[in-house]
Amino acid sequence: MVNVNNKKIPASTISRLFVYLRELSELIKVNINTISSAELGERTNLSDAQVRKDLGYFGQFGVSGSGYNTQELKAALEKILGRDKTWNVAVVGAGHLGMALLTYPGFADHGLNIVAAFDSKAKKIDRKIGDVTISTIDDIEKIIKAKNISIAIIAVPAQSAQAVTEKLVEAGIECILNFAPAALAVPENVKVKDVDLSRELETLSYFLVNKKA
Amino acid sequence: MVNVNNKKIPASTISRLFVYLRELSELIKVNINTISSAELGERTNLSDAQVRKDLGYFGQFGVSGSGYNTQELKAALEKILGRDKTWNVAVVGAGHLGMALLTYPGFADHGLNIVAAFDSKAKKIDRKIGDVTISTIDDIEKIIKAKNISIAIIAVPAQSAQAVTEKLVEAGIECILNFAPAALAVPENVKVKDVDLSRELETLSYFLVNKKA
Repeated sequence: MVNVNNKKIPASTISRLFVYLRELSELIKVNINTISSAELGERTNLSDAQVRKDLGYFGQFGVSGSGYNTQELKAALEKILGRDKTWNVAVVGAGHLGMALLTYPGFADHGLNIVAAFDSKAKKIDRKIGDVTISTIDDIEKIIKAKNISIAIIAVPAQSAQAVTEKLVEAGIECILNFAPAALAVPENVKVKDVDLSRELETLSYFLVNKKA
Repeated sequence: MVNVNNKKIPASTISRLFVYLRELSELIKVNINTISSAELGERTNLSDAQVRKDLGYFGQFGVSGSGYNTQELKAALEKILGRDKTWNVAVVGAGHLGMALLTYPGFADHGLNIVAAFDSKAKKIDRKIGDVTISTIDDIEKIIKAKNISIAIIAVPAQSAQAVTEKLVEAGIECILNFAPAALAVPENVKVKDVDLSRELETLSYFLVNKKA
């Protein structure tokens, strides 16, 4: 939950705003200027009520009876979601997952620039991956401040995740994407998003049991 | 979309069924025996209407006025979603991302057993990662059939993804999780789920712009 104008906004609402934003971009590409909440719901596989509830947290967007202006709603959502800005990102842990993230294309398209990487193993330090040089974990605070980094990705083993988190929090990081299968303890002002890669596979099992013979 | 009893079920509905399933497991742990669609929506940050619409695709679960029996709904969802079964999985591509997936804990908890890995590079072949030995891509068909593999994860570079997909389809694979940033062409009976790791970071930018100063 995040507070906006003293209202608690569920994380799932925020995720859906990104879905609406992508859909609005598609609509604008094909010159559709207005859309109702029911149509937006239809296109995003959500109920009319859900769309209105999600957008309702942030004020009054549509004109009653004529729907939303796609350009205006897109601009409003980009501002709400911080998509009109870019952010500097650090990857902590340069093992398989960290290296995969460092070489993963597509972050830049989302306004996310990976500008630093850290590892504890001496043999990894000073290796260059694309434009990023791997630094020692001891330099976290110095580099995070010097490079104006706002988001950290944790890609270390579970047993190291809490110690790394504490270094990041000390360095002033308030936003963490956590790939380690560990529950991180953080102060109230720090936001952690846990990623479970196995969930990506979940919906496939549904397909397998329901496919036509 | 997947057809069930001639109804088209949106992929997003299936994703939400997994959310309901996790919530039902939590409720059962604390001995809650019945729950209304409104309460289930409240706990999963979805509207009452959304919950009823999603479950409505699969029949009549609740008793009007008294809500859903948590045990019964959980068992029904497990059956619908194939979570009462286990599936054998192959990882294609043993680069950074493939290795990260091969060593990622937690797949087994979701009924997913990684039993094979493939790579095109000679130096990777016959390396053992946990219980899995990396095989040459030329053996895809033989091993997929021998090991009764239902799901393939593509973790190869974009430019190799289509060729690998064709080998998998020839081997009878109908379910693919695709980490390569490439749009895969597959026959109609094959389900591809594309994963964009950068989306995991999306919601964090929202937090950054809305955090308290």
